[in-house]
Amino acid sequence: MSNQNLASTLGVVKRNIVRADPAAVEKLSRFGVATVHEALGRMGLMKPYMRPIYAGAKMCGPAVTVLLQPGDNWMMHVAAEQIQPGDVVVAACTTDNNDGFFGDLLATSFKGRGAKGLVIDGGCRDVDELQQMGFPVFSRAIHAKGTIKATLGSVNIPVVCAGAAVNPGDVIVADSDGVVVVPAAMAQQVADAAEKRESFEGEKRAKFAAGVLGLDMYNMREPLEKAGLKYID
Amino acid sequence: MSNQNLASTLGVVKRNIVRADPAAVEKLSRFGVATVHEALGRMGLMKPYMRPIYAGAKMCGPAVTVLLQPGDNWMMHVAAEQIQPGDVVVAACTTDNNDGFFGDLLATSFKGRGAKGLVIDGGCRDVDELQQMGFPVFSRAIHAKGTIKATLGSVNIPVVCAGAAVNPGDVIVADSDGVVVVPAAMAQQVADAAEKRESFEGEKRAKFAAGVLGLDMYNMREPLEKAGLKYID
Amino acid sequence: MSNQNLASTLGVVKRNIVRADPAAVEKLSRFGVATVHEALGRMGLMKPYMRPIYAGAKMCGPAVTVLLQPGDNWMMHVAAEQIQPGDVVVAACTTDNNDGFFGDLLATSFKGRGAKGLVIDGGCRDVDELQQMGFPVFSRAIHAKGTIKATLGSVNIPVVCAGAAVNPGDVIVADSDGVVVVPAAMAQQVADAAEKRESFEGEKRAKFAAGVLGLDMYNMREPLEKAGLKYID
Amino acid sequence: MSNQNLASTLGVVKRNIVRADPAAVEKLSRFGVATVHEALGRMGLMKPYMRPIYAGAKMCGPAVTVLLQPGDNWMMHVAAEQIQPGDVVVAACTTDNNDGFFGDLLATSFKGRGAKGLVIDGGCRDVDELQQMGFPVFSRAIHAKGTIKATLGSVNIPVVCAGAAVNPGDVIVADSDGVVVVPAAMAQQVADAAEKRESFEGEKRAKFAAGVLGLDMYNMREPLEKAGLKYID
Amino acid sequence: MSNQNLASTLGVVKRNIVRADPAAVEKLSRFGVATVHEALGRMGLMKPYMRPIYAGAKMCGPAVTVLLQPGDNWMMHVAAEQIQPGDVVVAACTTDNNDGFFGDLLATSFKGRGAKGLVIDGGCRDVDELQQMGFPVFSRAIHAKGTIKATLGSVNIPVVCAGAAVNPGDVIVADSDGVVVVPAAMAQQVADAAEKRESFEGEKRAKFAAGVLGLDMYNMREPLEKAGLKYID
Amino acid sequence: MSNQNLASTLGVVKRNIVRADPAAVEKLSRFGVATVHEALGRMGLMKPYMRPIYAGAKMCGPAVTVLLQPGDNWMMHVAAEQIQPGDVVVAACTTDNNDGFFGDLLATSFKGRGAKGLVIDGGCRDVDELQQMGFPVFSRAIHAKGTIKATLGSVNIPVVCAGAAVNPGDVIVADSDGVVVVPAAMAQQVADAAEKRESFEGEKRAKFAAGVLGLDMYNMREPLEKAGLKYID
Repeated sequence: MSNQNLASTLGVVKRNIVRADPAAVEKLSRFGVATVHEALGRMGLMKPYMRPIYAGAKMCGPAVTVLLQPGDNWMMHVAAEQIQPGDVVVAACTTDNNDGFFGDLLATSFKGRGAKGLVIDGGCRDVDELQQMGFPVFSRAIHAKGTIKATLGSVNIPVVCAGAAVNPGDVIVADSDGVVVVPAAMAQQVADAAEKRESFEGEKRAKFAAGVLGLDMYNMREPLEKAGLKYID
Repeated sequence: MSNQNLASTLGVVKRNIVRADPAAVEKLSRFGVATVHEALGRMGLMKPYMRPIYAGAKMCGPAVTVLLQPGDNWMMHVAAEQIQPGDVVVAACTTDNNDGFFGDLLATSFKGRGAKGLVIDGGCRDVDELQQMGFPVFSRAIHAKGTIKATLGSVNIPVVCAGAAVNPGDVIVADSDGVVVVPAAMAQQVADAAEKRESFEGEKRAKFAAGVLGLDMYNMREPLEKAGLKYID
Repeated sequence: MSNQNLASTLGVVKRNIVRADPAAVEKLSRFGVATVHEALGRMGLMKPYMRPIYAGAKMCGPAVTVLLQPGDNWMMHVAAEQIQPGDVVVAACTTDNNDGFFGDLLATSFKGRGAKGLVIDGGCRDVDELQQMGFPVFSRAIHAKGTIKATLGSVNIPVVCAGAAVNPGDVIVADSDGVVVVPAAMAQQVADAAEKRESFEGEKRAKFAAGVLGLDMYNMREPLEKAGLKYID
Repeated sequence: MSNQNLASTLGVVKRNIVRADPAAVEKLSRFGVATVHEALGRMGLMKPYMRPIYAGAKMCGPAVTVLLQPGDNWMMHVAAEQIQPGDVVVAACTTDNNDGFFGDLLATSFKGRGAKGLVIDGGCRDVDELQQMGFPVFSRAIHAKGTIKATLGSVNIPVVCAGAAVNPGDVIVADSDGVVVVPAAMAQQVADAAEKRESFEGEKRAKFAAGVLGLDMYNMREPLEKAGLKYID
Repeated sequence: MSNQNLASTLGVVKRNIVRADPAAVEKLSRFGVATVHEALGRMGLMKPYMRPIYAGAKMCGPAVTVLLQPGDNWMMHVAAEQIQPGDVVVAACTTDNNDGFFGDLLATSFKGRGAKGLVIDGGCRDVDELQQMGFPVFSRAIHAKGTIKATLGSVNIPVVCAGAAVNPGDVIVADSDGVVVVPAAMAQQVADAAEKRESFEGEKRAKFAAGVLGLDMYNMREPLEKAGLKYID
Repeated sequence: MSNQNLASTLGVVKRNIVRADPAAVEKLSRFGVATVHEALGRMGLMKPYMRPIYAGAKMCGPAVTVLLQPGDNWMMHVAAEQIQPGDVVVAACTTDNNDGFFGDLLATSFKGRGAKGLVIDGGCRDVDELQQMGFPVFSRAIHAKGTIKATLGSVNIPVVCAGAAVNPGDVIVADSDGVVVVPAAMAQQVADAAEKRESFEGEKRAKFAAGVLGLDMYNMREPLEKAGLKYID
């Protein structure tokens, strides 16, 4: 029943991972998910079923990744030891599963290790306690369903979480608009692009507030006409 | 690649639409969605997947309609020009799509034009900013995913939005219970019926609070017995 | 068109049901859903699509059960008469249906009869009013859609609600984590187990907060190694 | 409980409807759904959850429309009387409902009246018998769940079925690719456009089979380069 | 981590179950699911997401029930020993899970024990081989995902499978229209009612084929008029 | 509106990719998806919503990957040029989208280039024609909805398709049980493990057919008892 004869990615914990540059992480933490996603070239978003378990939850940090088995949160305890202050844990599962892999005890442990929060393509429970603790979780479900500790997954391997590829050390930015993954090597570049983008947005916002139309601000009238748009009365 | 040889409803902007009577709109704005839906003869509701992006969002106004293409928000800018103070924009899409067609910049533009809010059978982003602005949106998803500006849809044509047929000028009433569409020509009649209905509800509520059973208040015991209901111990 | 020739469970109201012991219900009300579910041996949970209609909703009480027909809330009025102070109404439906079976009028009636709240595998409306009344509802949908009163269901028969079997008199515990059903005969036993469990949790929480790892607290290192877990650098 | 005081669209049967021109219907019947949808300017498709109940089902004819209530197929019997030879019945529902509104008895009745088939945004049963009869049905679900006959809907009013607006008399084309609605007034025009489109497709198919790339056939290389596409090794 | 201190229903195998009377099972096997569901008073259906893994699959027999844990098919092997010739295995799971709990090896085992087929609220794999073997399975998903053998569930306890309560020994009837559960004690009665119902259907079918309308056959014109139905031209 | 200033993965076509060894691909093609998934250590499966568009579809080959934009199939034409005989095209999309990106014309082109088939996390149309051509497609939906050619995606970059990470050159195996991705570098190793696994399965199948129980064949009785399984009568 063992598959260890293969160079499988199951049953592995990688201890040393290359986290994104702390300064870049800090800078990314100033921007919202929509801005970072645009700055990244419109890539890296998780699916919109990933929602914060309480209003206002947000976080930013390098990823410690976990691959879970359905109904089994054993690897979450293994992951706890790999957390460094400022990390965000990203938990994927080998199949769609809404069980409550995570609750206030594990949150206490993760928080004690310095984790900023959790992104889990699975269920979460004890959500009132988590809100009181101020420990943000983005999950696919809220479910009290308990889990066991019986089967190996992995820690700090590349995973697919809610449709997004995540490598350990990548920067996770999460807020009310969702969750985005910034490759570690691009963190500074994306943070700079986000900053630039946001400065432009201030200008645009002022114009829009003053009643200027996007049609004029973006010079859309000609391309629209060319595309065949017809105005009728 | 053009389909303009057909009398297609794509690529058209109708400038002059007949909005529901402002007095009727004002009166409708005093009632909740459930009441208006009942007053309308139990018609006109959008599907329940349409939810407010923040708690307490509500609005009422005549519809400016938009037909979007998936992943493309070009027509939102075209629609902005057609907004008159008090309007609610209703955006449908030619296919199911959760992309973030709408965010705080467009909201600033829409608000600047006097729009009351947005109903969109698609995704929305910048939801924290929208809540701070007090710009209500009812959407099928919250998603940071960016969109392009490349393909024509239409503005102010009849659309199907979240399962409901909407004509430009129809009254949109939206609150925590969902979104209902009142045909422009029936607005006054429905507002009157809603008022009447609500006055009856006050009476019923008092009786229920006093412990009177619906069984007795609505004389249901006889029809229930006739239908064959059996009480056992 | 009648099926009364069969010993069908449709068209029946059971008046006398055995409610769980009040002391046990009171004790269960002190614990969260996740704790009770664990104390029950990880059984009895409803599916996670059942959500409170407002943040912070919670309740605990013996079940009065209702079996509804799609788009028809007649039996809710029949159920109202069977409510005793402290009860929680549990409404199942013969098919998946999101219609708004329940609103503020029925809530006024149920509350007037002493009900603690409602669990409904269907839709609910007037959610703002229900929040103002402080009447908690856990439902599969929020939908303004009106219902009729035309077809018999049953009251106080065993039902399946959101995937969980519920017998009249069973204890329903509901909070932000979901809804769990405790068989009436096991109420005291489960309450005691929940209490014991919670006392253990306090200890564990303190250790986790102090930085002790689950790996060490639960002696997982050896079984993990035996299972083949490999640490790499 | 009556809503007849409003000019509601419930409780109405329209006897005389304007069916699309028979010659246009006949011509449309020669083309597949994808072709007709393109010829119509990429409009008029129902959502892809509408599937044939057996492989190979297809049909084309003018629509007799029905608006059903959840769990209630009374109006199907009312609709039967309005069927003329060659018609396709299109049944919408006032809410999402998978109940088995239609089975082999109603199919025998519809077929006896000359109906070509049924499109129903609801459930269907007796699917083996329907296949044996050769009576095509496109539905959102297959479900044995029985329905009642208690509440009025309507026949031959405009409906929204699976996301598409359908007027009585419009042409329904359905095959393995889905269901498309052609407005009655555009039937001939769309049939002609479909024919033209198909003649072009023959040419293209031959070129593709001979190894010509779309890149060259459609002159895409230049616009792709302009859009910024980069080839790397 | 053990919950055996409670009278939990997990970790139990019941060896002696009361199967429905074989003559009644045989008689029920002659009727379709829709007919049996009607004969039962419109109760007992599983949700319509349960589909046969190949066209034409059908079966009828008393239930051996299994409660599985997510991603774990250990109990299927325990169940195999409890199968008697003619049985249908009904597998529920403690949570929604699409993993491939069942494939051709287990099917060979089950078939060798005399099982008629499987109903599983989970995933199934090796579907081509199962079709070749003629071993019918009704499942919520087809998925190659492998499972482990690590956690106890139960065999022959009451379960909820796809929304239906199933007791060991109940009769399972499954065909293209879905899956229905007949309580063991009602099997003969339901079989008789099904027979009666089917004899009536023959008559009705002949009338429908001859063009008689349901409106007349069921005397619906008067109740429809009374309900307010209006014919317009 | 351009994001090319970033090292984005959009707008890129990689011409030279390292395809898995042809001999390993050929060997893998002899095994089913379930077997390959097991041989790979239970990794690499796409989600079960990916289904063949016709019964019996199956294929095996190295992946040419495509990243599509919603409602836009421009990149499919770019991908066509990169196909080598024996390849399987794997198309992902930047968001969930069921539009009909692929039909018989593109299939003629792909087949002309030697493609074995297509896996697309999107919609497909012309499914009858594709079946007649014998061109297998595994998709998330069947939908006639047409697409445009306006926005850049990429070809032969790493993608996430239906939850699985796919690199260009990886081996795709697809049959009735789903779709599995074998990393190119592991192809031979996995093929060998699959062969070994299948040889064991023959033995087991014979024993199961002869009535041997899994309980005995796998020596499960002791671990079950240890885990606390109780037999009752």
